[in-house]
Amino acid sequence: MSANELRRDYLLDRWAVIAVERKRRPTDFVKEVEEKKVKVCPFCPDNEHMTPPAVLVYVPSNGSIRKERDQNGFRHKGWLIRCFPNLYPAFTPADQEENVQIKEDTVLAKAFGHHEVIAESPHHDEHPGVARIPQLVHVINAYLDRLNALSAKTYTQYVSIFRNHKRDAGASLSHTHTQLISTPFVPRIVAEEMEASRRFWVKNKRCTFCEIIKKERDSPRFIWENDSFVAFAPWASVHPLEFWIFPKRHQPTLLDMSRAEIEDLAVALRICLGGLKSLLKDPPYNFGFHIALSKEASDYYHWHLEVYPKLTIWAGFEKSTGIFINVVPPEDAAESLREAVQKEEKGLVAKV
Amino acid sequence: MSANELRRDYLLDRWAVIAVERKRRPTDFVKEVEEKKVKVCPFCPDNEHMTPPAVLVYVPSNGSIRKERDQNGFRHKGWLIRCFPNLYPAFTPADQEENVQIKEDTVLAKAFGHHEVIAESPHHDEHPGVARIPQLVHVINAYLDRLNALSAKTYTQYVSIFRNHKRDAGASLSHTHTQLISTPFVPRIVAEEMEASRRFWVKNKRCTFCEIIKKERDSPRFIWENDSFVAFAPWASVHPLEFWIFPKRHQPTLLDMSRAEIEDLAVALRICLGGLKSLLKDPPYNFGFHIALSKEASDYYHWHLEVYPKLTIWAGFEKSTGIFINVVPPEDAAESLREAVQKEEKGLVAKV
Repeated sequence: MSANELRRDYLLDRWAVIAVERKRRPTDFVKEVEEKKVKVCPFCPDNEHMTPPAVLVYVPSNGSIRKERDQNGFRHKGWLIRCFPNLYPAFTPADQEENVQIKEDTVLAKAFGHHEVIAESPHHDEHPGVARIPQLVHVINAYLDRLNALSAKTYTQYVSIFRNHKRDAGASLSHTHTQLISTPFVPRIVAEEMEASRRFWVKNKRCTFCEIIKKERDSPRFIWENDSFVAFAPWASVHPLEFWIFPKRHQPTLLDMSRAEIEDLAVALRICLGGLKSLLKDPPYNFGFHIALSKEASDYYHWHLEVYPKLTIWAGFEKSTGIFINVVPPEDAAESLREAVQKEEKGLVAKV
Repeated sequence: MSANELRRDYLLDRWAVIAVERKRRPTDFVKEVEEKKVKVCPFCPDNEHMTPPAVLVYVPSNGSIRKERDQNGFRHKGWLIRCFPNLYPAFTPADQEENVQIKEDTVLAKAFGHHEVIAESPHHDEHPGVARIPQLVHVINAYLDRLNALSAKTYTQYVSIFRNHKRDAGASLSHTHTQLISTPFVPRIVAEEMEASRRFWVKNKRCTFCEIIKKERDSPRFIWENDSFVAFAPWASVHPLEFWIFPKRHQPTLLDMSRAEIEDLAVALRICLGGLKSLLKDPPYNFGFHIALSKEASDYYHWHLEVYPKLTIWAGFEKSTGIFINVVPPEDAAESLREAVQKEEKGLVAKV
């Protein structure tokens, strides 16, 4: 019996045990789960009063988009995108613009920040894996608008943009939506990536992520690319079927994207998440963007999107040690995803 | 609306968002789940041939315990405790006693180590929350025997002893059991605790864990104690209802326990896990021991057991940032657990 592999993450001090023996095939994880139907969806059109007033609404207007805000109990209707504060926020705005300092010896602070929801479409089920490309462009533009607004607050050090798909991945509502949380410090995982990439930059005057992208494009972990983006299964994936999407051009935050890149990201999301959906019959997943907001980091940090299919359970070993057992080698994951994503792309082109 | 709290862990650079507003009551998490029944349990007596030969068996013999090993296809019967290699090991023994060095720049290594299962009782359902105390003493002695055996291997740098309870917490079989995994490096979470406690020791010549115990015994997070152990909900709990059990006497590893302490740990497990069981109708949980094997760490490291009830789902925010949202403040968790554990103790005393 040959031993499993221990792989260290590109930048994090994080180890994955990659199954070699008795590994599982990606399709072993196909499991169709009926999502609980709600009678009344609070994120659907005509139910806007069930959620707080929107901080941003995209309304179609003369062939273009008008950006609005709900005010004084009034709720805009006929929207394409609707962003509003989470009714159960983890982080809440400070009463006034406070400068919340989290220092090295801080052990207790107020969770000042924002926690918002973006309803990605008026259509309940228009998830990114099946969405129309123009609608996904609206979604990404809404990310950028809110990222801009939230990062302007004095107490914002970071903005996490993330998505929970299906109940098993922590989504309490099935209407297609993304969440944003702004935090008064840079979260640990991103901070650790930043510190490692900073050290690499100091030593080599190059972006370590740019190097990783170059290497992984030619590796068996490559999945898909278009002009602006590349998708691959990371070397030390901690989730089965995990994949990351990187912009090819060096850029620290989503806010640096050109219009063409925004369009290309919409296509990348549609095709990669569509491929995952068709491969495993719409599995639960989470995704989270990693970005840098600070000017200092712009030389060495490179934003990306990490997608974590939720196919297995982190148990006592993972939780008490921080070592992760992954039963699908990323090379196998990439092979299956590559095929599924290619089919998805062909289908999409045929439809257009 | 008042803001939630951000709390940093005692030693780790890990933040929990503790709900203040719209927090949940512990009993909100009561959810009875029917566990899948298997027709034939491979861990039950008479099915020993379904698992690999045991590396340790406790057999009753003239009022005491005889320790045996299965050999040449022979399987011992009539056992009280049975320990055998996991049929699907994450870590596997090296062919010969290799010295596996994981260095700072290692990115790939073989997952050499051991992965074992301890069937904690011949009775399928004798989980620690309901077990007889003498049986739990056998369980702990088996931990010690295997810890001794595995830590003697040249490539062992750490031994993780952990338990997954119920399918939702990652247990694939419901027979009461613990797992051991030995690894060729100290896992990140333990290493980080070790480094922080080492720094505290260098500065103060005191064990930081001893100080934490002293402080938490007098805090609203205190749950229960006996002569040798104390249980409390940690300040920056990342799981709802999380609690930790510490030996009062300074000791780096389980192997330092006296016979009286072993007996007291058996009682602590029975009462604390029994209290959790009765409070939430036998919820899924994981537990993991944190220990130090190295001589250097013996001054500053202090072993303990961390228990993580599995009541919520880590989603996109947690997984992509490493910040954890906990909807039950540890003070509320401790209050409920304190009451449940006191009842449990009274019931146990009445039974004896």
